[in-house]
Amino acid sequence: MTMMRSRQDVTDAIIIARVAKGLSWSDIAGELAQSLEWTTTACLGQMAFTADQAAKLVAFLGLDQTALPWLQIPPAKGTLAGTAPADPLLYRLYEIVSVYGPAIKELIHEEFGDGIMSAIDFKFEIKRKHHEAGDRVELNMSGKFLPYKTF
Amino acid sequence: MTMMRSRQDVTDAIIIARVAKGLSWSDIAGELAQSLEWTTTACLGQMAFTADQAAKLVAFLGLDQTALPWLQIPPAKGTLAGTAPADPLLYRLYEIVSVYGPAIKELIHEEFGDGIMSAIDFKFEIKRKHHEAGDRVELNMSGKFLPYKTF
Amino acid sequence: MTMMRSRQDVTDAIIIARVAKGLSWSDIAGELAQSLEWTTTACLGQMAFTADQAAKLVAFLGLDQTALPWLQIPPAKGTLAGTAPADPLLYRLYEIVSVYGPAIKELIHEEFGDGIMSAIDFKFEIKRKHHEAGDRVELNMSGKFLPYKTF
Amino acid sequence: MTMMRSRQDVTDAIIIARVAKGLSWSDIAGELAQSLEWTTTACLGQMAFTADQAAKLVAFLGLDQTALPWLQIPPAKGTLAGTAPADPLLYRLYEIVSVYGPAIKELIHEEFGDGIMSAIDFKFEIKRKHHEAGDRVELNMSGKFLPYKTF
Amino acid sequence: MTMMRSRQDVTDAIIIARVAKGLSWSDIAGELAQSLEWTTTACLGQMAFTADQAAKLVAFLGLDQTALPWLQIPPAKGTLAGTAPADPLLYRLYEIVSVYGPAIKELIHEEFGDGIMSAIDFKFEIKRKHHEAGDRVELNMSGKFLPYKTF
Amino acid sequence: MTMMRSRQDVTDAIIIARVAKGLSWSDIAGELAQSLEWTTTACLGQMAFTADQAAKLVAFLGLDQTALPWLQIPPAKGTLAGTAPADPLLYRLYEIVSVYGPAIKELIHEEFGDGIMSAIDFKFEIKRKHHEAGDRVELNMSGKFLPYKTF
Amino acid sequence: MTMMRSRQDVTDAIIIARVAKGLSWSDIAGELAQSLEWTTTACLGQMAFTADQAAKLVAFLGLDQTALPWLQIPPAKGTLAGTAPADPLLYRLYEIVSVYGPAIKELIHEEFGDGIMSAIDFKFEIKRKHHEAGDRVELNMSGKFLPYKTF
Amino acid sequence: MTMMRSRQDVTDAIIIARVAKGLSWSDIAGELAQSLEWTTTACLGQMAFTADQAAKLVAFLGLDQTALPWLQIPPAKGTLAGTAPADPLLYRLYEIVSVYGPAIKELIHEEFGDGIMSAIDFKFEIKRKHHEAGDRVELNMSGKFLPYKTF
Amino acid sequence: MTMMRSRQDVTDAIIIARVAKGLSWSDIAGELAQSLEWTTTACLGQMAFTADQAAKLVAFLGLDQTALPWLQIPPAKGTLAGTAPADPLLYRLYEIVSVYGPAIKELIHEEFGDGIMSAIDFKFEIKRKHHEAGDRVELNMSGKFLPYKTF
Amino acid sequence: MTMMRSRQDVTDAIIIARVAKGLSWSDIAGELAQSLEWTTTACLGQMAFTADQAAKLVAFLGLDQTALPWLQIPPAKGTLAGTAPADPLLYRLYEIVSVYGPAIKELIHEEFGDGIMSAIDFKFEIKRKHHEAGDRVELNMSGKFLPYKTF
Repeated sequence: MTMMRSRQDVTDAIIIARVAKGLSWSDIAGELAQSLEWTTTACLGQMAFTADQAAKLVAFLGLDQTALPWLQIPPAKGTLAGTAPADPLLYRLYEIVSVYGPAIKELIHEEFGDGIMSAIDFKFEIKRKHHEAGDRVELNMSGKFLPYKTF
Repeated sequence: MTMMRSRQDVTDAIIIARVAKGLSWSDIAGELAQSLEWTTTACLGQMAFTADQAAKLVAFLGLDQTALPWLQIPPAKGTLAGTAPADPLLYRLYEIVSVYGPAIKELIHEEFGDGIMSAIDFKFEIKRKHHEAGDRVELNMSGKFLPYKTF
Repeated sequence: MTMMRSRQDVTDAIIIARVAKGLSWSDIAGELAQSLEWTTTACLGQMAFTADQAAKLVAFLGLDQTALPWLQIPPAKGTLAGTAPADPLLYRLYEIVSVYGPAIKELIHEEFGDGIMSAIDFKFEIKRKHHEAGDRVELNMSGKFLPYKTF
Repeated sequence: MTMMRSRQDVTDAIIIARVAKGLSWSDIAGELAQSLEWTTTACLGQMAFTADQAAKLVAFLGLDQTALPWLQIPPAKGTLAGTAPADPLLYRLYEIVSVYGPAIKELIHEEFGDGIMSAIDFKFEIKRKHHEAGDRVELNMSGKFLPYKTF
Repeated sequence: MTMMRSRQDVTDAIIIARVAKGLSWSDIAGELAQSLEWTTTACLGQMAFTADQAAKLVAFLGLDQTALPWLQIPPAKGTLAGTAPADPLLYRLYEIVSVYGPAIKELIHEEFGDGIMSAIDFKFEIKRKHHEAGDRVELNMSGKFLPYKTF
Repeated sequence: MTMMRSRQDVTDAIIIARVAKGLSWSDIAGELAQSLEWTTTACLGQMAFTADQAAKLVAFLGLDQTALPWLQIPPAKGTLAGTAPADPLLYRLYEIVSVYGPAIKELIHEEFGDGIMSAIDFKFEIKRKHHEAGDRVELNMSGKFLPYKTF
Repeated sequence: MTMMRSRQDVTDAIIIARVAKGLSWSDIAGELAQSLEWTTTACLGQMAFTADQAAKLVAFLGLDQTALPWLQIPPAKGTLAGTAPADPLLYRLYEIVSVYGPAIKELIHEEFGDGIMSAIDFKFEIKRKHHEAGDRVELNMSGKFLPYKTF
Repeated sequence: MTMMRSRQDVTDAIIIARVAKGLSWSDIAGELAQSLEWTTTACLGQMAFTADQAAKLVAFLGLDQTALPWLQIPPAKGTLAGTAPADPLLYRLYEIVSVYGPAIKELIHEEFGDGIMSAIDFKFEIKRKHHEAGDRVELNMSGKFLPYKTF
Repeated sequence: MTMMRSRQDVTDAIIIARVAKGLSWSDIAGELAQSLEWTTTACLGQMAFTADQAAKLVAFLGLDQTALPWLQIPPAKGTLAGTAPADPLLYRLYEIVSVYGPAIKELIHEEFGDGIMSAIDFKFEIKRKHHEAGDRVELNMSGKFLPYKTF
Repeated sequence: MTMMRSRQDVTDAIIIARVAKGLSWSDIAGELAQSLEWTTTACLGQMAFTADQAAKLVAFLGLDQTALPWLQIPPAKGTLAGTAPADPLLYRLYEIVSVYGPAIKELIHEEFGDGIMSAIDFKFEIKRKHHEAGDRVELNMSGKFLPYKTF
């Protein structure tokens, strides 16, 4: 096992171990006792783990011990390298694609197989959810799954 | 009233008329008897109207009659001019920001005032929704509303 | 009627006249006795007309006479303003999207209404077609039409 | 043989094995009993294989066994890294170049040798094909093959 | 006086009126009874005004009455059109330059004349400030003012 | 220990040693007897060290001796690779994000954990500070810290 | 006739007058008694005219007298707005496309009609030409003309 | 000798062998009995070799035998990674710089030493050359060679 | 005379007036009693004028009185819209091209006519110049002037 | 010592050897008996050496013998990878930053330490220098040196 020299090294090792062991993201989320969505986002290098979560992950996937501190440090996040929209509200939507998008991709593939969520056969809804610590925006999207097929 | 020479002209005229008349997007959606979300997206130049919807909109906002055919033609869509992610699934998420983002911005502002939906105090959930014509991906997001304040 | 000062002016005038008169691209192609595909590509400013075709088009759409010479001059072509692939074969595919893409968009909308040709529920086939003046590549694509719907 | 650490590693290994063994894409498609077009697209890293197809491919090309799971996972797709057109219909055409373009390049070269499909001596046709599961757009292109020559 | 057709029109009119009347940003902030920093940011099109603030501003600068509703609507914000850093924390720093930067420029010029705040003869300090509604990051910068001189 | 072949090598080695030894930036700043802010900026490859500082750092972190000369040479600085604003004053703000931003990120994380300084719940103030060698611009920013949470 | 406010205005006026009068670039070159290639390059805004040449051009095309000084001032040149190659020799080739390319386009169209010079059925040759004032590089290109055809 | 894993590997090996053996491009062209221009273009990875040419090249330069199939496969071509002009005729000129430019650079350096072909002390000429298989565009350029000098 | 609505309007008016009146930059510098270099830079919109300088310029060129306040306000500077080098020292060189480049262009043309300063037949020298207020870098460049010629 | 496989390898080796041996650029220029400015530019990979200069450099720095031919071949030059100005005169200024900028950076650091040449406390002068082989443009710049300081 090789020494981890960056969080990117750890992310690569997680992806390789998951494929080699034939694990689903659900398996990993179950082990960590966190939501499937957060776990996948974090494993893809976008979130910091607690010491306890890091230890469980390293043990479960058989990673090198040098992965432990990297997992607990706030990582450099984001995956989109292009021009971002200037407006702060629109930018937050773009940031969601940048930070959470790879996890969304993994989870749609895990649930549905290869394909996409349609942006044409699509609708969305916005609602206010009251909350003590400040109201929340609920943004719900629904798009048809379109599978790739062999031909 | 000036002759409309493009769908962009019509979109500009809708925005100006709405501001001048002090109408909300809800008012317009009510008049068209469509969802608030679709109506806003369409008024911002991203969707085609039926002849009936176009007539109602032109009458309600007092637009020039030359707006009628432009509203019924499939428009050039999208508002993001930068580098898009190459992966088709990730791209669909980006396209949602490009096509529906301006409407999301308008509706969050209409409901909450000036501010943003946080991408930090944020969570999301993915679910499969069974549907006869093909299952759908439900992608639900929840982010705290953060208001701008004067200082 | 205003004097035409560039081919872009003429293209704009064609689009406005077509919308105002409620004509289809088929109507225009019929008038010119050319294929629907070439006619639309040319009207969108990508091809040069003969003197005879230009005269017919100007008369049919009621354009200003100053449109005549502009229609007969080889225009500045192409609509994609971004980074192109460096490989010449891949570039030709990209150029097809740049030069013929707007016409493809118009004709799919004219035939199917607002929506897209799927790139997911999609297949393609490549065949050699023998030809005296040099063999041709036949590249046939088939994608499901996905309509936008109101919600 | 080296352990595969990503789908890109597997794609590289496929390309190297094919060149070293002097195989055509037809040979590989025949082995997999799939169309030439889909097989090439998939081998270039744009499609997921079934377990059976993956096993056949690994055996036929003599790849490392660690290639097996990578071949069955939905890959990160797309090859164009630049600015994409914002309009969804135009974008789908661009995505076709991005996802299927490298396979189109390989197959034109396999059939015709080094050269291009002309975008000048070129025509296209659009037709509606009725289909139970929803009508399809047939987009047929024909371009003269232009060979490179030594000088 | 011309009708205002967008918030940009109003911003342009504010800038022109301020120059023509020889007012400082301090004068305007005094009239609105807001901080100099917020007032300048808002006048440059980055913040929404209350009805009362909008009325005062329009009266003080002698703007057209159609400016009133535009000033109260959450505007499209941001002034930097390029590639943004992907990391959310770094992006917030970049967004500060994009949204507040033009106001910072105005206020440095108002206080010091033409020139810059040095990024070389520069230091910064970060402190935690406890706050009931959540602790705050205090980021204090100090850079030497370097004036342009005639030569 | 490997020979250092560039300042980037040294920066990488500093980051790896710090993580492996579980040191904070405060620990390192204390060792060097410099401010926390300057030390972090310098360790991230943006500033040159004196011979004495370099020797202390190499000893404290156990770096290879070949790091010594690299630490004392003025490095290639800056971390933002995109389009910069053309105006010199705005550019200096952008340069501050480019040169000092990574250190700001580290120090906010060290003090507050994973999260961001809000650019929405944010205010700033500009003041002149008199100074013998030329007056200084004090630009003070205050933004609420928003933590990432697991979900 | 409108007053010319920039060299771009003059270039636009030249293009409009040439189209309206049905003149070829040869006609204009003949009037100026200069080569066809230089004349076209200069008329497209890339070269400065002498007072005598400017007077002849203004008279021949019936341009406004205010065009005269603009034609004699060294203009802002170049038409390519993208990323240029960094190597100085390669850049000079790129600059040739940028400065002389539009004239090359006009002259190929004037001689051959609408179409392109092939970069596939193409060859080039490099020779040294001895010259007193310093030897010259002769770079000769030969590409098949490919015409666009109606379909 | 190392196994060749891509055409790029082979191109790198050709360049290294040529430098190490002190060969000119003329020497290599002589060995292949092809023109100097085509040979250089092909050796720089832009053209496919015949089996016979590949064998001669591998023997002459002492390359690894695994270079043989790579040399015979149509390569991914082009060297310019930026924004290309949209117009097809102008693009072909740009493509010539992209595909043939590196060979032009090598041959000017081989003949003249380090320096450039001037784009200022420059002229060009366009001529039609009649040809049975379709007329050709002759585009002849002449630019003064400007040498770099030590100082 | 039209009202000036921005510093850009004033810059345009200066350029037009100078061309129409046949004035050289030397004439204007003489009137202002400033160096030729600073005057040209300032007239091209990169520097602020004093009240006295502004009054002289407006009178000398016959500009509209509304130009006066615009000339005295620190302008938005810089003319290069692309990617800048990240290193602060290299960026300052780039900024010099952005801010002072257009003036350098004007002055070389005023002195030498149309052409360039060679970057090939070029040398530079760097010297330290002692100065009480801090030493200065003297960066002296010398490049051969290369004129464009008609052909 | 490793075999040099490109001029970039040689440049890297020069930089590493210089740092490891604690040599200044002056030391190297002295050894080569060339100007400090040219020597630094050449060592940074922008100029070709004579056989004699290459031999001296290899001996003085203890480089591998395979560096010898690479040093004598005209290199791929330039270091700026972004959008260049289109105008040829402005481009030459930009090319000077691209080709000579890294050497200017090294020499300012060698003479003054870490910091920049100010572009604010800056002036320039343009003069014609008569020369038999054609007059030269003298472009002299003077900017205050601003040092980075610890804090």
